[in-house]
Amino acid sequence: MSDFTNIGIISRPRRVDISAIVPPLRKWLEARYLRAQYDQETAQSLGTDGQGKTRAELAAQSDLLLVLGGDGTLLSAAREAAPRGIPILPINLGSLGFLTSFTLQELYPALEETLAGRLAASERVMLHAVLIRDGKTLDDQLVLNEVVINKGALARMIEVKLSIDQDFVCRYRADGLIVATPTGSTAYSLSAGGPIVHPNVESIIVTPICPHTLSDRPLVVGDKCCVEMSLVGPADSIYLTLDGQKGQQMQSNDRVRIFRAQERLKLIQPKRKSYYEILRSKLKWGEA
Amino acid sequence: MSDFTNIGIISRPRRVDISAIVPPLRKWLEARYLRAQYDQETAQSLGTDGQGKTRAELAAQSDLLLVLGGDGTLLSAAREAAPRGIPILPINLGSLGFLTSFTLQELYPALEETLAGRLAASERVMLHAVLIRDGKTLDDQLVLNEVVINKGALARMIEVKLSIDQDFVCRYRADGLIVATPTGSTAYSLSAGGPIVHPNVESIIVTPICPHTLSDRPLVVGDKCCVEMSLVGPADSIYLTLDGQKGQQMQSNDRVRIFRAQERLKLIQPKRKSYYEILRSKLKWGEA
Amino acid sequence: MSDFTNIGIISRPRRVDISAIVPPLRKWLEARYLRAQYDQETAQSLGTDGQGKTRAELAAQSDLLLVLGGDGTLLSAAREAAPRGIPILPINLGSLGFLTSFTLQELYPALEETLAGRLAASERVMLHAVLIRDGKTLDDQLVLNEVVINKGALARMIEVKLSIDQDFVCRYRADGLIVATPTGSTAYSLSAGGPIVHPNVESIIVTPICPHTLSDRPLVVGDKCCVEMSLVGPADSIYLTLDGQKGQQMQSNDRVRIFRAQERLKLIQPKRKSYYEILRSKLKWGEA
Amino acid sequence: MSDFTNIGIISRPRRVDISAIVPPLRKWLEARYLRAQYDQETAQSLGTDGQGKTRAELAAQSDLLLVLGGDGTLLSAAREAAPRGIPILPINLGSLGFLTSFTLQELYPALEETLAGRLAASERVMLHAVLIRDGKTLDDQLVLNEVVINKGALARMIEVKLSIDQDFVCRYRADGLIVATPTGSTAYSLSAGGPIVHPNVESIIVTPICPHTLSDRPLVVGDKCCVEMSLVGPADSIYLTLDGQKGQQMQSNDRVRIFRAQERLKLIQPKRKSYYEILRSKLKWGEA
Repeated sequence: MSDFTNIGIISRPRRVDISAIVPPLRKWLEARYLRAQYDQETAQSLGTDGQGKTRAELAAQSDLLLVLGGDGTLLSAAREAAPRGIPILPINLGSLGFLTSFTLQELYPALEETLAGRLAASERVMLHAVLIRDGKTLDDQLVLNEVVINKGALARMIEVKLSIDQDFVCRYRADGLIVATPTGSTAYSLSAGGPIVHPNVESIIVTPICPHTLSDRPLVVGDKCCVEMSLVGPADSIYLTLDGQKGQQMQSNDRVRIFRAQERLKLIQPKRKSYYEILRSKLKWGEA
Repeated sequence: MSDFTNIGIISRPRRVDISAIVPPLRKWLEARYLRAQYDQETAQSLGTDGQGKTRAELAAQSDLLLVLGGDGTLLSAAREAAPRGIPILPINLGSLGFLTSFTLQELYPALEETLAGRLAASERVMLHAVLIRDGKTLDDQLVLNEVVINKGALARMIEVKLSIDQDFVCRYRADGLIVATPTGSTAYSLSAGGPIVHPNVESIIVTPICPHTLSDRPLVVGDKCCVEMSLVGPADSIYLTLDGQKGQQMQSNDRVRIFRAQERLKLIQPKRKSYYEILRSKLKWGEA
Repeated sequence: MSDFTNIGIISRPRRVDISAIVPPLRKWLEARYLRAQYDQETAQSLGTDGQGKTRAELAAQSDLLLVLGGDGTLLSAAREAAPRGIPILPINLGSLGFLTSFTLQELYPALEETLAGRLAASERVMLHAVLIRDGKTLDDQLVLNEVVINKGALARMIEVKLSIDQDFVCRYRADGLIVATPTGSTAYSLSAGGPIVHPNVESIIVTPICPHTLSDRPLVVGDKCCVEMSLVGPADSIYLTLDGQKGQQMQSNDRVRIFRAQERLKLIQPKRKSYYEILRSKLKWGEA
Repeated sequence: MSDFTNIGIISRPRRVDISAIVPPLRKWLEARYLRAQYDQETAQSLGTDGQGKTRAELAAQSDLLLVLGGDGTLLSAAREAAPRGIPILPINLGSLGFLTSFTLQELYPALEETLAGRLAASERVMLHAVLIRDGKTLDDQLVLNEVVINKGALARMIEVKLSIDQDFVCRYRADGLIVATPTGSTAYSLSAGGPIVHPNVESIIVTPICPHTLSDRPLVVGDKCCVEMSLVGPADSIYLTLDGQKGQQMQSNDRVRIFRAQERLKLIQPKRKSYYEILRSKLKWGEA
């Protein structure tokens, strides 16, 4: 017997294969007396526009979220799933992701194993990113991968003061600054030169993007820290981006306070693939 | 006897010290029967708005450009000076620059030496950056430091195909791509992880910004090459920036063709300071 | 009243200033009814050769070790102090170290504060490095900074298989491989491109030295892991080095197993200097 | 008609496949009235020990050197071929090399094309590495890839003063220092973080290995420069290595002077494969 009775289906928008995947999937679930609902994006791909729910509604009514897409779709689903404690079963529609490590061929076996309680969830830390302007909280969001402050394409650089637990760390002059979770360490932070940090290391990674000071290096601090970035000087064209998805323009003296969320994301993962196996495959280690 | 009779003064906009520097400088020059004119930016700082010339006019009427400012002011002056073969005497108003290596204290001695023909000019390669859309040349500019294609702050990445002399090199998925001169190798390219290339190495440096493919490395090719970057896929928010100053939005399938300009910049430089001495000082080598 | 009655003095060998520092220090301690003893290295510098003890003996008879030297002397003292739970008060005789952050001028004030119980010790994780040959343990040592396997100067490269908790990670072809503590992250690992890891992040850092596979990146894993490096192929000229001090030649198929020691080093540190302040100063951040 | 009548065969020592490759190859050559001789290493593999010549003798008596092996065998052959102006046809017995880009399957077609004068040679700059002790030249060797000064496995670091054309550049504190040709830029220098430099860029690349000063970056200078490395301080365990093959221990105050050799290596290369194609394949660009 499974703990799951309400299955929410979230999918990447505008995928033609959704109409081939979702109807039989729904039938399969209903044959097992499980209730299947889907998000508006799935509804649109199926041509049943009225029947989709917002991802927030869907998460509120589900015990398990089945995510069909890539790491991007999963990042968006994570924001709804984590605060409600609902696990995500990620099925990857494109090339192997760091997060979406089940293939489409594995959809039904993975579902069976999950429903039977035989697949464990990897718990992933998420961060709060709080935007503070003039002493007031403007926004408070959850991120699974990273918080980025970066400059517009035509701007010269950002100047950001970093504090950790109110201790001044340094003033970065750079294209940007990334504050990442271990999960996010294999995403944008890695491209910027950051280390690979195993998801169970309780840490926050601070990686500068193209720092002007050549001795600036990625910094790994404990995830009980409160990390604060404050803009220094004018802020003509500086942006805050969360998980590569939600962005907004910043203003002079804005601060972003980042700290670990109480909620963790429960991410169902294949038993047979270790973390290092996915690394090797994605980063092409061990070849040649 | 000097070859210089018309001295053009170009200065960084909105510097309060200009009104203390330029009037005595002009007097000094006129006492030597030299004609001194200045640009609109200097005029504005002096409160004599009508008397300034555009930098293009000024360069057309001068035998020597005296640049008061930092590397930014010099980059802008270089675009006017190089095509006309006029040397630049750079006097630096702020902290030591890679290009502006005379201090304000050295203004008069440097001028005297220059007028007496005792200071040699370092010749710096410049590049043409030609923007091609639908097979037509939209723009053709000179750069002294670098040509950059990069993504807007909220965009995900750029995808750019690089060819050199029509040979396909690779497809970059990155935040951006920098094509720099040796002079530019100590500017933005260095922050992105590029090597330091001596100005007399006849080369063009291609440095990716935050490449997704971790084995992408900076590439140094001959400066007789024609380097071409072509946008692949959609171009929602991708920009072309020249010398960190002139920027414009790109469109799908745009190409940027980059090749060495015939004209070189003549940059007057202190005798006593070697290239490596400036490096050591700017990069804080040799300390501790 | 202090908990300390037996003070052991350890100093860097062959320092001429020892004879100016130690005799008054001893008098100062004895005036406070504290027993001061010293190691053989100090005895030699004082010309009282017979009176020094081995560092092991000294540690066994002391409640506090006063270390006069640089990070090197401290690394050696740490191996004796940690297993016995004795704190170290590090006084730095040369340039500021990451570990030895009291200056000679601060010797007496720091001692007073320490004896009065007003200075807290930062607890630093140490690692066991166990060398296994033909299934047998040949050696088991404690390290504070790092374990390194690297090639001799004339050898081509090492080939090392890395496993973490018996999970295969990858096969490195490189000049060497560093396994460091957070304390060691600012030592050799940093030169090899590793991240800066705050001492309170419970982690082990694996940093390859000049890897042939360009996508190899530093890896940070939890410090409850067992990290194992196994030599692959012939081992003509491959060495194991502990804390940059103890070295030995390895043989084919040798394994090095690394895991967190139960004992932590108690390192007395200045109150007023934060971890980040030392970083800024050592790495010259925040200048220019 | 071919310019080649004496073909020298050089092969990697102790390769079992040599006895299958060389006898038919010799027959093939002799059928075309070409004289085929081989080196001692080939003779040994063939079991005809007396018949091999030293590589120097062989080069002296040949018009073309056919090299069967990997990049290592080619580096050794290059030292004999370049001073005598003899081209090398490199056939690769293992995995694709940067230098040995013909496969064994291509042996006969490549030979035919070469003999018919239809394959062009890429000319590669070589460097003189001159070891100077107490003002006297101890050794003068040619290198195709790089000159390396590095520390022994148990030593702490090297301290080397770098001068270029007698201008002081900086003092490196590092594991080592690499001075490479463009050809060598894709070998050891690349692992140490150096840029990829196209063979036709007239330059010398200086890449530090694990520098302690984090702002040290690879440096590219003109190949008309004289690059000099001088050991600073004691030299307990410091080595000079040429092309990863010839090594010797250095002494205090030793200097190594490096400058471009007059002779270039003529390296026959496949027409259809561009330099960038080999890069893409070796570095796994363009995948995923």
